[in-house]
Order: sequence, then structure tokens, then C-alpha cells
Amino acid sequence: MGKKITPISELGEFKLIEKLTSNAPKYYSEIIMGIGDDAAVIKSTSENYLLITTDLLTEGIHFNLVYTPLKHLGYKAVAVNLSDIAAMNGTPKYITVSLAVSSKFSVEALEQLYEGIYAACKKYKVELIGGDTSSSLTGMTLSITAIGEVHPHKICYRNGAKLNDLVCVTGNLGASYLGLQLLEREYRLFKDSPEIQPDFSTKEYLLERQLKPEPRFDVLKALSDANITPNAMIDISDGLSSEINHICKASNKGAKIYAHKIPIDAVTAITAEEFNMSPETAAIHGGEDYELLFTTSLDNLNKLLNIPSVSIIGKITDPSEGIHLVLNEGNEIDLSSKGWDAFLPKKEET
Amino acid sequence: MGKKITPISELGEFKLIEKLTSNAPKYYSEIIMGIGDDAAVIKSTSENYLLITTDLLTEGIHFNLVYTPLKHLGYKAVAVNLSDIAAMNGTPKYITVSLAVSSKFSVEALEQLYEGIYAACKKYKVELIGGDTSSSLTGMTLSITAIGEVHPHKICYRNGAKLNDLVCVTGNLGASYLGLQLLEREYRLFKDSPEIQPDFSTKEYLLERQLKPEPRFDVLKALSDANITPNAMIDISDGLSSEINHICKASNKGAKIYAHKIPIDAVTAITAEEFNMSPETAAIHGGEDYELLFTTSLDNLNKLLNIPSVSIIGKITDPSEGIHLVLNEGNEIDLSSKGWDAFLPKKEET
Repeated sequence: MGKKITPISELGEFKLIEKLTSNAPKYYSEIIMGIGDDAAVIKSTSENYLLITTDLLTEGIHFNLVYTPLKHLGYKAVAVNLSDIAAMNGTPKYITVSLAVSSKFSVEALEQLYEGIYAACKKYKVELIGGDTSSSLTGMTLSITAIGEVHPHKICYRNGAKLNDLVCVTGNLGASYLGLQLLEREYRLFKDSPEIQPDFSTKEYLLERQLKPEPRFDVLKALSDANITPNAMIDISDGLSSEINHICKASNKGAKIYAHKIPIDAVTAITAEEFNMSPETAAIHGGEDYELLFTTSLDNLNKLLNIPSVSIIGKITDPSEGIHLVLNEGNEIDLSSKGWDAFLPKKEET
Repeated sequence: MGKKITPISELGEFKLIEKLTSNAPKYYSEIIMGIGDDAAVIKSTSENYLLITTDLLTEGIHFNLVYTPLKHLGYKAVAVNLSDIAAMNGTPKYITVSLAVSSKFSVEALEQLYEGIYAACKKYKVELIGGDTSSSLTGMTLSITAIGEVHPHKICYRNGAKLNDLVCVTGNLGASYLGLQLLEREYRLFKDSPEIQPDFSTKEYLLERQLKPEPRFDVLKALSDANITPNAMIDISDGLSSEINHICKASNKGAKIYAHKIPIDAVTAITAEEFNMSPETAAIHGGEDYELLFTTSLDNLNKLLNIPSVSIIGKITDPSEGIHLVLNEGNEIDLSSKGWDAFLPKKEET
């Protein structure tokens, strides 16, 4: 027919979103940030800004119910949305939960899912205010919208990184990705030999990071207590490499990340070796850490050293210097490429 | 294993939601209405209340892409969410759009979908502020959240119906349902004999009602101009019968609906007969009309008679009288049963 047909995979997630949303009509000046950060930011007449973020999770892409207990799925689905509110330095308050399920799910199964949803609501003091429930021809789809608030003086965007800022990360990286590798490996073994029981002993930490991530409101509190408001912040869902690219692109800056400064848990390191992978690769490209990546002025160095869950891993540079990973021997690897892309084949399937 | 397994279909959509959400933890007194109306209502420090509503649409359940052009799907997905804001007597302002699509969709196809989304945004002055885009193993899933506002003196809940209130409906009913029947019939014919071209001449109105519904902000304006704020209101997505049940249950009232007062378009009536169905059945149980059903004091009778798009179809009674449809010959049919249920087999597939 001569009509152009471009496969989505040719563009990738971020360029696709850019293409689809560049012509969106604009009406309201109170929309301080629409598409392009972890959450939308709306100025209301109240003291605080309103934050809105949403995620859509589909079975077989974002979760595998063979090894994901429904209670954990519910918890994680809420937690990852709250992590987007955390990335704006905000406080989550409400969520909506929409659910489409096929007839293979029982009422009891959905009760388990909601048990996990409510466990996360209780932990983070969030209230369910609405949603939609309907049937689906295939499996489960879960869509969560989180609404929060933040004081205008406290808000952190991706675009605020300043030259010579310290680049910091919370917790440690790569554990969730290796947890997923373990689950996928046992799943493949189980498919071949259903009589084999999975053995995850000594690896529980990795599974927990994959199945039950926690948004880092604890670190936000520590930063606030130390009077630090990051200049730029994002949460690590698609991997450190992808997120530092987002910050640098939005801030029109470059960055140097020092490989030996990236925090990696011992179990992560050992397990990465078992998978014939360098621990740094898991930490940099793995994703689903839901830790916070932020930049802040060098002036805060001493204060930062007193906050145990924060590691300083690099610095913000002039954009002409690009985005590089500095290896121990001084060599540099270009990081200015994409991280995990929702439309590329899943990494664990190679 | 002795574990109880209850099929979702045993409960149905509304009881399932009740069961899953009855134990939701509560924290915020500013949540005036959470689950249980067309939209959640949040008191902010601003003059207006915040309204939040969300819908999840899955391919094969809510839409069939064989006969739904993507542009129409995008338009309708936004329109039905805005209709929930209309049902609260509110003004929509922002939407988020989340999308999961399989590789069968091209970039150009998604551009058509977004063309429809933006057409609705322009018509109703709504701004896209965020979303999520990812892949899916099967087909398309679309989740939209709409955010709006309403002045506290103007808000309409389902639970405000008063004894002897007039029951009113906007526009006419049943057209969308028959539009769907036509599309399904031609789809079945096409599957059997692909060379047959569908003939929809004289039925365009029904297709338009099915494929491109419009939320009735025009009638809200007319009501406001006439100084009428309904006591109770809901939009008709699941059918008049289901919605009057929602209003009566929430308001602890009964209702009488007069069959001969229900507005039905001539094409709807003729087409219903072609399908061997009474026009009233299509109008009462069809659904997807996205008209407004509201109740208001008898004192407003004269004002209402001057608003062309409003029909008075019944009255609110004591709850002991139940919910009945009064036929022309004076017989009454009990309407206090469920309308369209998202977990029951689709009506057109009987």
C-alpha cells in the first residue's frame, strides 16, 4: 500500500515517547513539569506541589507469576510507583490500582495481590482511592497511579545537575538484576526437570531485592535532616547507565562515574561471577534497583560522608566531556548509550 | 491442597471490588470520597476539590481492533475517563496515558492512537502530563487516569438522591450498544466471507455513538446556567439499569423509571427491531452511552423542561419500594439486578 511501517523496536522506548508526545497540546501554566521526569508536577494553590506518576505492568513482560508470589507483585507494583515520587523528593499520599485479569485467577489469588498492595500502603502511609477492575483475555495487567506532594523548595528534577556536582547513589546496585537471573535460571531448570527443588540458600538478599524493592524515603529523610536538597535526582529503574544519561541529557551536562566507587554487595559480586558477568556490569546495566541517583554540590561532601546509605560515585562535568565510566586502571568506557529498553528483547533471554 | 478457590465470575465485578477494598487502610481525612463513586474526591487547600479517576482498557475485552480504528480508540479512551469527571459535575484538566503494546503495532499505528487522544484533549481542553509505555506479549492495553476539579458547592455524588427527586437522563440511550451489535455482526459476516463489504448506510449515528462517545459537559453547562446542581449523578457506562441501582444503593432510596419516558433515537429503535430486541432493552441494559443520569428536586421541573438534551424518566422513592421499570400498560419490572458486568460473558456473544 506504500504506507510506511516502522517497527517500534527501531525507535526504542524513549524516542517513541518523544515522537508520540512532542505534539501534545498545552493549556495549563500550572503544569510545571509534564512528560519528562519521574512524575508530573502541578502547582496548586496549596503550599505544596502535586506529584503524579503512573506505571503499567503486564504479565510475561514485567513479571513472571511462576516465580513471583502475588503478594510480592502487589507490594512491588506499589513500591516502584512510590519510588518515582521519592525521586522528586516528594511524599506519596494516594494510589489508584487498575487490574485486568483472566479467568485463571481466583478471588483468593486477587486477595493475595491486594494483601501485598496494602502492606506497601501501610509501610509508606499511602491510601488507595480508586481504580478499575475488569477481565482480560490473557493473564494479568496492573496499572498503578501514585499521587504525592512536595514543597517547592524541596523538589528535585532530573535537569538540575550543576558543573562539578558530586554524583551519589543510595544503597547498592546490581542485586535485583542478579536476583532475577537466579529466578530465571531455576525456572528454566524447573521447566526441564520439574522434580528439582530450587536452592536459593545464601542468595536470599538478591531475591528480596528483586521481589520486594523498597523506595528510599529513609535516605531522603537523612538528606533532609542534614539540610541537603539534591540538585538533580532520579530513581534507578532501568540501570545506573540509563539514569545518569537521563540526568545529563536533561541538565545538559556530562559525567564521570568511577567503577570502583559503585557500591556492590558481596553476594551480588559472588553471584555475578557465577553467571560469568562482571559485578560492575550488573550494577551499571542491571536495573530495578529502585535506589536513588542524585547530584549535589561539593560543599556537601562532609555531610554526605556521615550518611551511611549514600555512596559518592562520580562527578558532573561539562557536556563536551560526555558520560564515561572510569575503570580502576584509568581507562574510560563510554556510557552514553541506552540502558534497559522496554522494547528491546529482555536481557536475561539472550 | 484444600485451599479455597472461588472463580471471579461467582462474585462479579462490584462484589469483587467490595471484597478486595473493604480492608484498605485509611490515613487521610482530606480524602472526601475514595472508592465508590465515579472519581475519587480530595480536599486540597485550594478552592476546588481534586477529582481523580482511572480506566484500564484491554484488547479483546473492551475493544476489537478489527473494527475500531486506532484514532477512535484513542479518542474514546480519553472521552470515557472525562465522562467520569463529568459525572462528578467537574472540569477535567489533565490525563496520563499508559500503553502496553505487542510488536504487531507499528510506530505509525501508535501515532494514529495518539492523534485520537489529542483530538479529545483539544476538544475538552485537557493536557497530557505523563504516562508509561512498554511492550506486551499480547495485543494492546491502555490505561488512562484523568484529573479534574470541582467547586465544593457544585460536586455531585451518587449518594445524594432525595425522596421524590426527579430522575433525569441526558441525550438518548441504546444507540452505542446497537452500534456495537452492528459492528459485531459485520465482523462475523466478514470472517465467513471476506469479500463482502460492510454496509452501514443509515446506521452511521449508531456507529458514531459506539466509536466516538462524547462526555456531556454541554449539558452540565446548561444545568449550571439554569442554576441546577443535581442531588445525585453518575455517567451511564454499564447501562441505565446498573447505574440507577448504584444511585439508589448509595443514596438508600428506591426508584421508578417509566419505560415510555426513556429517550430512544429512531435509528436505535428500528435497528433494535432488526436484532429482534425491544428498543427498551437496548436502552436499559446496553451501556456505553456515556450520558448522565441524575436526580434533582421537583422544584426544578420547569427549568428542566427548557433544557432540550434532558429527559425526565422517573422519580426517586422510598427504598422499601425497590427499583422498578414501569411499562406502558402499568406493569412493573424489577430492575434491582445487575447490569453489564465486566466479568460476565459479553452480551453480544450469546
